[in-house]
Amino acid sequence: MGNRIKRLAIIGSTGSIGQQTLEVVRALPDRFQIVGLAAGKNTDLLARQITEFQPRFVYSEDKMAYPASTEYDLLSLEEIASHPEVDIVVVATSGRAGLSPTLAAVRAGKKVALANKESLVMAGDIIISEAKINEAQIIPVDSEHSAIWQCLEGETQPVARLVLTASGGPFRGYSSAQLAAVTVGQALGHPSWQMGRKVTIDSATLMNKGLEVIEAHWLFNIPFENVEVLVHPQSIVHSMVEFVDGVVKAQLSYPDMRLPIQYALSYPERLANPQLPRLDWSRISQLTFEQPDFDVFPCPRLAIEAGKKGDTYPAVVCAADEVAVELFLSQRIKFTDIAYLVEQTLGQHQAIAHPTLDDIMAADAWAREKVTQLVTGDSPC
Amino acid sequence: MGNRIKRLAIIGSTGSIGQQTLEVVRALPDRFQIVGLAAGKNTDLLARQITEFQPRFVYSEDKMAYPASTEYDLLSLEEIASHPEVDIVVVATSGRAGLSPTLAAVRAGKKVALANKESLVMAGDIIISEAKINEAQIIPVDSEHSAIWQCLEGETQPVARLVLTASGGPFRGYSSAQLAAVTVGQALGHPSWQMGRKVTIDSATLMNKGLEVIEAHWLFNIPFENVEVLVHPQSIVHSMVEFVDGVVKAQLSYPDMRLPIQYALSYPERLANPQLPRLDWSRISQLTFEQPDFDVFPCPRLAIEAGKKGDTYPAVVCAADEVAVELFLSQRIKFTDIAYLVEQTLGQHQAIAHPTLDDIMAADAWAREKVTQLVTGDSPC
Repeated sequence: MGNRIKRLAIIGSTGSIGQQTLEVVRALPDRFQIVGLAAGKNTDLLARQITEFQPRFVYSEDKMAYPASTEYDLLSLEEIASHPEVDIVVVATSGRAGLSPTLAAVRAGKKVALANKESLVMAGDIIISEAKINEAQIIPVDSEHSAIWQCLEGETQPVARLVLTASGGPFRGYSSAQLAAVTVGQALGHPSWQMGRKVTIDSATLMNKGLEVIEAHWLFNIPFENVEVLVHPQSIVHSMVEFVDGVVKAQLSYPDMRLPIQYALSYPERLANPQLPRLDWSRISQLTFEQPDFDVFPCPRLAIEAGKKGDTYPAVVCAADEVAVELFLSQRIKFTDIAYLVEQTLGQHQAIAHPTLDDIMAADAWAREKVTQLVTGDSPC
Repeated sequence: MGNRIKRLAIIGSTGSIGQQTLEVVRALPDRFQIVGLAAGKNTDLLARQITEFQPRFVYSEDKMAYPASTEYDLLSLEEIASHPEVDIVVVATSGRAGLSPTLAAVRAGKKVALANKESLVMAGDIIISEAKINEAQIIPVDSEHSAIWQCLEGETQPVARLVLTASGGPFRGYSSAQLAAVTVGQALGHPSWQMGRKVTIDSATLMNKGLEVIEAHWLFNIPFENVEVLVHPQSIVHSMVEFVDGVVKAQLSYPDMRLPIQYALSYPERLANPQLPRLDWSRISQLTFEQPDFDVFPCPRLAIEAGKKGDTYPAVVCAADEVAVELFLSQRIKFTDIAYLVEQTLGQHQAIAHPTLDDIMAADAWAREKVTQLVTGDSPC
C-alpha cells in the first residue's frame, strides 16, 4: 500500500484550486500526501495549511513570514516543482506566475496537474516540446480540458472537433451598452463555478474561453479551426469531443472543481469520494446550448486570433488581460475596457517569431507596460 | 491493404438494421466485404442484395426461392454465423430468431455485432459464458449499449451506474386511459428512430427499455440496481455511464443507427463516412430529461423484475411480448393489453432454475402458447 500514496506539491496552495486540491487530499489521506506547499501573499492560510499537512518543502512569497525551520525546507518554486520526492506537481496558481514552475516540473519529467492556463497559452510550444523530451505528463485540471482528456481516453483516432462549453458568465445576453455599465460586484458573481477573482472576471468577459481554446490547441495538438465554443449556461456538460465518424462524447458532472482535480491526481484510477456531488437526473430537466456572441464579447475572438498568429501574441493577450482585469477590479476602467485594452495592445505589438522563454517574458513585460500606458497616458476610459 | 478488409455476414439482412448495415458497407467498400446474407421472407429484397453484394453464403427462410447456385452456397444460419471465412457476424434480426445464430457465432469465437436484444435477454448467462470460453467478442449495436460501450472505452474502473436513455416513444405523457385507445398507426410513428415494426412497438410500450436493462446487465456485468432509465425525447444522448468518482460520460449523435453499426464494424478504428450526420450545435438549443412513468408504462418494470428473478423469466417476457406485439399489430388486442398479457403470462410461469438452452426454448414455447390461450380462451380484451 505504501508506494501507492502519491506525493504532491501544490504551487498556489492558498488559491481556489489549491484549497480544493487540499480538500481532495483531506478526503483521501491514504492515497495522497502533501510534500510541498507554495503560496503567495496569503501567509495566514499557508500557516494553517502547513500545520495541517506538514509538508517537507515550503515556498512563500513573503520570505520573512517563513524563516528556516527544522520542520520543512524553504525552497524556490522551481526547486519544489522539480524535487525528486514529488510525484505530482499541481500548478494551481493563475497568471504568469505558473509558467516557471510548470516548466521546471516538465523538465524534471514530473506528472503535472495543470490548472494554470497562462503557461500553455504563453509558452505552449516550449512546454509541450519539453514535456515530450523529458517524458513529463501534463494532466489538465481545467474542467473543459479534463473533460476532453477523459473523452479521449482509450480512443486511438484523431478527433474531428472539440466543443468547449462556456457558462456564458453572468452577462450572457447583455448588449455592449449594458456590458459597459457592469460593476465589479456583478462581474464577481459567477452563476455556477466557485473560482478565484481573476478567473471569474475572465469568465465574465469570456476571455477564459479564448485562452482555453489556445490551451486545447497545445494539449490536444488540434488546429484552431477544429475547436468550437458553445455556451451552455448550466455548466454540466464540461466539453465534448467529436470523432471522425461523427460520434460525440461528452463529460458531465455538477460544476465542482474537485472532480477534475481528483481525477488528475488519481489517474488512471478513479476513486470514490462521498464528498463529491453526483448528478441527480430527477432534478435536471434540461441542458441548454447557444452560440457565443463574439461581437458583444470580443475577448475570445482576440485570444483565438492571437493563438492562430502564434509567436509572442498569445503572451501579450495573457499579460494585457491580467493587467486590465486588475484595473477593472480596482475600478479604474470599465468592464468593456478589458477587451479594448487587449485589442489595442495586440495591435501595437511587434511580435518575435519562434520566441525563446526570454522573448516571451519580454513580450509579457512590454504588454503590461503598454496597458498601463494606454490607461494613464492615452486613457480609453 | 487486402487483409484490412473485414468479411461480414449479416443475419437478417432485409430488416431495418440489416439494410442500414449494407448502407455502411456500400459507403466503405474498401473496408468491408459481404460474404454472407441471411434473410426471412423478403425474398425480393434478398435477391437484389445478392446481386449487389455477391455473398458467398446465403440463407433464405424460403428455401424454394434460392435453389443451389454456383454463385453462392446455401447454408443454415448457424453455418453462416460460424463459417471460418466470416470475420464479423452482424446479428440484425429481431426476436428469438437471433438466439441460435448468435450462439453459433459466439461458440466459433467470432466478433459478433449484436443488434438482437432477445438473445442476451433470453440466454444472457449462456451466451456470455460461451463468449468468454471461446474468446468471442460481443460488440453492441443497439444505440444505448453502443453508447455505454464507447463511454467505457479505455476506462479500467468499475462503473457506479448506467443511465439508459429512452425517447419515451410517441405516447410520452399519455394517461393509461389514453394509451388504451391508441391505434397501430399511431404506435408505428416513432418520433426519432427509424426501426422495424416490432422494435417500434416495443419503443412505444417502453418494453424496449426493459429488455435493454437486462441486456446491459449481461453485456456490462452490472447489477440491475445500478441501471437507471431516463427519458430523453430528443434521442441525442444515447446513454451515459457514471463512474465511482461521480464523473459521467455520455455519447451523443443524431439518432441514426448507421453510427453504432459502423463503429461496431470498424472498432477499434473510427472511419470517416460523409453520409453520416454530424451534430450541428447551432441547431440544438436544448436537451431535455424526465423520469419514466412505470405506472402508465408497466412493461419496463415487468422486464426488469423478470431480469432480476432470472432463470426462464426473461425468456417468458420476450416470448409473451413478441406474440402480444404481433396481436396488437394485427389489431386483435389493445395497446395496453401488451403489458397485461406479459404480466399475466409471467404470473403463471413455473420457472426453471439454471436453465439450459432447451429449457429456455421450452419456456419460450410455453409463453407463446399461454398468450394465445389468454387471448382466445379467457380474453382480456
